[in-house]
Amino acid sequence: MDIPNLRWWGWGTLDQTYSLENRPRLWPTLRQWLALPEDISHTPPVLLEDIDLRPPRLNDADLAALRKVAGEDAVRVDRLSRVEHAFGKSYRDLVRVRAGVVPNPPDAVVYPSDESQVAALLAWAADRDVAVVPFGGGSSVLGGVEPEPGPRPVISLDMARMDRVLSVDHVSWTARIQAGATGPEVEAQLNAQGFTLGHFPQSFEFSTLGGWIATRAAGQASTGYGKIEDMTQAVRMVSPQGILDTRDAPATATGPSLLQLLVGSEGLFGVITEATVRIHPKPQVQDYRGFLFRSLEDGLATLRDLLQGGPRPTVARLSDAAETAGFAMLARKHGGLKGLADVAAEAYLGMRGHSLTGGSCVLILGYDGDVKATQRAWKQAAPVCKAHGGLAVGRSVGESWKRERFAQPYLRDILLGAGVLVDTLETATSWTNLLRLYGAMTEALRSAIRDTDGGPGYVMTHVSHVYEWGASLYSTFLGRQVRGEEEQQWWAIKRATTEAILSAGGTLSHHHGIGRDHASWFEREVGPLGVEAFRAVKRTLDPAGILNPGILLPQGR
Amino acid sequence: MDIPNLRWWGWGTLDQTYSLENRPRLWPTLRQWLALPEDISHTPPVLLEDIDLRPPRLNDADLAALRKVAGEDAVRVDRLSRVEHAFGKSYRDLVRVRAGVVPNPPDAVVYPSDESQVAALLAWAADRDVAVVPFGGGSSVLGGVEPEPGPRPVISLDMARMDRVLSVDHVSWTARIQAGATGPEVEAQLNAQGFTLGHFPQSFEFSTLGGWIATRAAGQASTGYGKIEDMTQAVRMVSPQGILDTRDAPATATGPSLLQLLVGSEGLFGVITEATVRIHPKPQVQDYRGFLFRSLEDGLATLRDLLQGGPRPTVARLSDAAETAGFAMLARKHGGLKGLADVAAEAYLGMRGHSLTGGSCVLILGYDGDVKATQRAWKQAAPVCKAHGGLAVGRSVGESWKRERFAQPYLRDILLGAGVLVDTLETATSWTNLLRLYGAMTEALRSAIRDTDGGPGYVMTHVSHVYEWGASLYSTFLGRQVRGEEEQQWWAIKRATTEAILSAGGTLSHHHGIGRDHASWFEREVGPLGVEAFRAVKRTLDPAGILNPGILLPQGR
Repeated sequence: MDIPNLRWWGWGTLDQTYSLENRPRLWPTLRQWLALPEDISHTPPVLLEDIDLRPPRLNDADLAALRKVAGEDAVRVDRLSRVEHAFGKSYRDLVRVRAGVVPNPPDAVVYPSDESQVAALLAWAADRDVAVVPFGGGSSVLGGVEPEPGPRPVISLDMARMDRVLSVDHVSWTARIQAGATGPEVEAQLNAQGFTLGHFPQSFEFSTLGGWIATRAAGQASTGYGKIEDMTQAVRMVSPQGILDTRDAPATATGPSLLQLLVGSEGLFGVITEATVRIHPKPQVQDYRGFLFRSLEDGLATLRDLLQGGPRPTVARLSDAAETAGFAMLARKHGGLKGLADVAAEAYLGMRGHSLTGGSCVLILGYDGDVKATQRAWKQAAPVCKAHGGLAVGRSVGESWKRERFAQPYLRDILLGAGVLVDTLETATSWTNLLRLYGAMTEALRSAIRDTDGGPGYVMTHVSHVYEWGASLYSTFLGRQVRGEEEQQWWAIKRATTEAILSAGGTLSHHHGIGRDHASWFEREVGPLGVEAFRAVKRTLDPAGILNPGILLPQGR
Repeated sequence: MDIPNLRWWGWGTLDQTYSLENRPRLWPTLRQWLALPEDISHTPPVLLEDIDLRPPRLNDADLAALRKVAGEDAVRVDRLSRVEHAFGKSYRDLVRVRAGVVPNPPDAVVYPSDESQVAALLAWAADRDVAVVPFGGGSSVLGGVEPEPGPRPVISLDMARMDRVLSVDHVSWTARIQAGATGPEVEAQLNAQGFTLGHFPQSFEFSTLGGWIATRAAGQASTGYGKIEDMTQAVRMVSPQGILDTRDAPATATGPSLLQLLVGSEGLFGVITEATVRIHPKPQVQDYRGFLFRSLEDGLATLRDLLQGGPRPTVARLSDAAETAGFAMLARKHGGLKGLADVAAEAYLGMRGHSLTGGSCVLILGYDGDVKATQRAWKQAAPVCKAHGGLAVGRSVGESWKRERFAQPYLRDILLGAGVLVDTLETATSWTNLLRLYGAMTEALRSAIRDTDGGPGYVMTHVSHVYEWGASLYSTFLGRQVRGEEEQQWWAIKRATTEAILSAGGTLSHHHGIGRDHASWFEREVGPLGVEAFRAVKRTLDPAGILNPGILLPQGR
C-alpha cells in the first residue's frame, strides 16, 4: 500500500522521529569527536513549494494513455509525488533534496495494480521512448531509483498497489507474494498464517519484497534466515520482451541459474511482479542477548566458532570499540532508581575490566525458535562466548537493540540538519582477510574525511551478516559537512574508500547493491567480460533500453 | 590425473566389477519382474578394433599446432582415446558404444596443463573453426560431452592434468582447486590437511570438480553439505573472449550473479579452470543407520520433520517399496552363522510387520561430525523416525550402503549385456507436490516401457536430496531391450516421461543437467526469453560458437 505522510526530505514518515530526550551525551560527544563548532546551527530542508521543479515532460495524450492503462487515480504528476520519487535515501540524495536540488524528477508516477498493467506500461514506454524506473520503497542508498539526466521523459513505476501475499504453502514452507509488499505487509500477512519471512533490513518499514530481490538485500537476521537471494525460490518478472517465470523447485540442475540472473538485476531486465519465497514458522521465542568483548578479535573468534561449530545464531552483530562507544553516546540517562541501576551497572563493568567508551566491543547475539530449541542453543552458545572472554550483559541489551533497530535513520535527518556528514559503507570478505579489510576501510575513511576538510571524523564498524566462510563489514562514518559542497565532498570520500575496499579484497557490496553510485566500479567486481555478458542480457530483454538507465551498467559504451 | 585402464564400453575401470557371487536372487527376480527369457544370453561389447571409426579430420599442421601449445604427449589421436571421449556414460551412450556405433568421435583429445594452454587452445580453435568439448571425467548421462555431428572438426579438451588443490584456507574453510581434479584427488589432497569437500556423487571416482560445477551436480551427502553450487564460492573460467573470475566473497550484492551464470553453463561459455570451494573439517564420525517404514508417506513425513525441525541429516535416502525390494534382490546370501543371523533378522522384521519385499521402505539416514555432535543429533533424530513408525535396523545397513554406493554402475554393464534396458531419471519439487510427481513419473515410465515393447518393466525410486522446501526424486527403470532399436526405444521412454515430469510440475533436472538429451526441453524449463538471455551470453563469450555445440541450448535457431 502507498504509505502516506512520508518525509520527502528524509527518512520515514513525518509522525516519527529520533527522540533526543534524556540523551545528554549526544551533542557533547559528537562535538568532541567531529570538532563541531560550539554553537551548532540547525538548517531545515527547503520548503516543498520552493523547489525549482522541472514541469512534467509528458503531454496530455501521454497522461491519458497512462491513465487508460492503470486507472484515473494511478497516475500522479503532483509536486510531492514527483519529489518523493526523485531520489532514494542516501546521504547524497538527502543533502540534495534538503537543499532543493532536484534536477531529474520523474515526469509522472504510475501505480500499476497487476501484472498486465505493468506489461502494458512497459509496452507504452518502449513505444513512446520513455524511461521507466521500477520503484519499491525508494529506500535505495546508492541511487537505485534516481531517474537518468537527459531529455528523455521518465516515469517512476511505484509497485505499492501490488502488496498481497497470494498463497502460503504450509507444508512446503513457501509463499507467493507480490513484489510491492513492504516489510510490515509481508510479515502481517504471513504472521496471520503462523509464518515469517525473517527478512528485517533496517529499511524494513518502507522497503519492498521486489526491491529486496532486485538488490540482493540482507536483513538483520540474515545469519539465521539467509539473505533475500537464499530465501527466493522463484521470481516472476515482466520484461519489455515478455514474462520471465523461473521454475519453482527447491533445487535444479538446468543450466545457468535464470533465477540468480534476475535476482539482483536492479530493474534493468524487467519489473519483478511476484516471487515465491521460503518462509519459516513464526518463532515462539526471540532470545537476544548482549555480550562485551575486550577486543574485536575476541568477538570475531566467537562468531567464527559459532558459525563453524554451531549453534548458528539467527542474529549476530558485533560492534567495534568505536561503535560501542557510539551506543554509549546514544544511551538514555535515567533518573531515580533506574539512574542508580545504570551507575551500578557501569561500576560492575568497570570491575570486570570493561568500559563502553574504553575499548570494549558489544555483541548482540540472538536465537529464534521454540522455547526448547532456543534454550538448547544458548546452553551451547554461552560457553563459546565465555571461552573468548565474552561478558554476558543480559537480555535487556538485546531487547533494547531490537526495539531501536529501525530508528537510527531518523537520527541521521537530525544530524544532516546540524551540518554533520553521515553515511554508511558495507562490504564482505573471508575470515582470513577480515581484519585487513577492516583496517584498510577504516583508515581510508578517516583519511578521506580529513582530506576533504571534514575534520577529524569518526568511523565505527560492525559485523552483522556472518557465514561459515567470512562476514560482512558495515561502517558508519561521520564528519563535518563542507557547506555548499556536500555532494563533492561525499564523492571524494566514497571514491577513496571504495578503491581501498576493492584493493583490500572486499566485495563492492554485500547488501546495498550497485545502483548509480557504484556503477563505475561494477566492472572491477565482475570484470569486463562479466559486464559484457550482462549487457547482452539487457539488450535481449530490454532492446529499447527503457528500464532504469544508468543503474548498474555504466552507460555510454 | 588421467585414469588408466578405463572401460571404454562401460563404467569405471577394467579391474573393477559388480560381484554377482552369493547373490542368488538377482537373476530369478529380474526374470520375473521384467519377463526376461528363461535363457538369458550375454552379449559382449564389440572389440575396439572392430569399431568403424572415422579418421581424424585434423591435418598434420593442426596436430603440430596443438602439440606446440600443450606439449608432445598432450595430444592424442589413437583409437582408444577417441572412443573414450566420444560419449558420456548414459544408457544411450553405452548401447551405442557396445554395438560399435561411434558416429562422432573427437578428432583429437588434448590435455592442457595450465590456464594459458587452455586459452591458447581456444584461440587456435576459434581461428581454425574447430569445436571444443570440455571434458572432465566424461561421466555425463545426458550427452554432455558428446561431440556434434557435422563436418566441423572437434577436439575433446580433457582437463585431467589440472588436478591440484592449489591452496587451503584453514581459517575461512575454503580451498582453491583446479577443475580437472577427480573426487578421490580432491578428497585425498583436502583430507591430508584435515578437510573434506563433502561432495560424493555416484560418479565420485571418475568425475571432476569442473564437471560437477558445469552441471550443478549433487553428491550423496548433499542434504548436509549442499549441492556443488552451494559449495562453490568463486570460479575462474577461460572463455574464447578472455578470463572470467568471480569475486571470492561469502556473499555479495553486486548485481545479477555472475557466479551462478557460469555455474551450470555446461561448457558453453568457457572452460572452468579452477574454483574456490567451501570445505569442512573431515568428520570424526560418519554415523549412518537404516530404518524401515511401512509406507513412502511415513518416510517422507520423517524427512520433512527432520529438515524443517532438525537435526538436519548429512545423508538422507528414502527408497520406495520397489527399490527396497531391489535391495533385497541384490542382498548377498550368507552361509554358516551369518546365514543364520540373516534368517533371524528376516523373522524379526516379519514379527514387526515389515518385509523388504512386501511394501516396506528403507531409509538411510546419516550424520557426519564429531562424536558429541553425532550423538546429540541421533538423540534427537531417532525419536523423529520412531514417531512415524520407523523401525531402526541398525548401523550395518548404513555401513553396507556406504560401502557399495559407488558400485551399482558396474552392475549396469552386466545388465546391458544381458539385454536389460536400465536407466535413471531425476527431478525435484516441493513437499506438497512430491507424491503427485512421484505418481506421474512412475506411471509414465511403466506405460512407456510397456508401450515400447519393453515388457512389464520395473520402476524403483528414491528421495536422496532433501530440503526444507521439498526434495528430489530419482527413479531407476528396467525393462527388456528391443534389440537393434535400443536407442529409439530409450528415446520414446525418455520423451514420454520427461513430458510427464514437466506436466506434473517437476524440474527438468535436479542434478544430472541438460546436456544434449534434455536440450529440446530446456525452453520448457526457463521459457523462451530465458533461452534468449543465455543465447545472448553465449554469443558474447563465444562469438565463434566453438564451445560444446548442441549442448544445453538447442541449435538451429
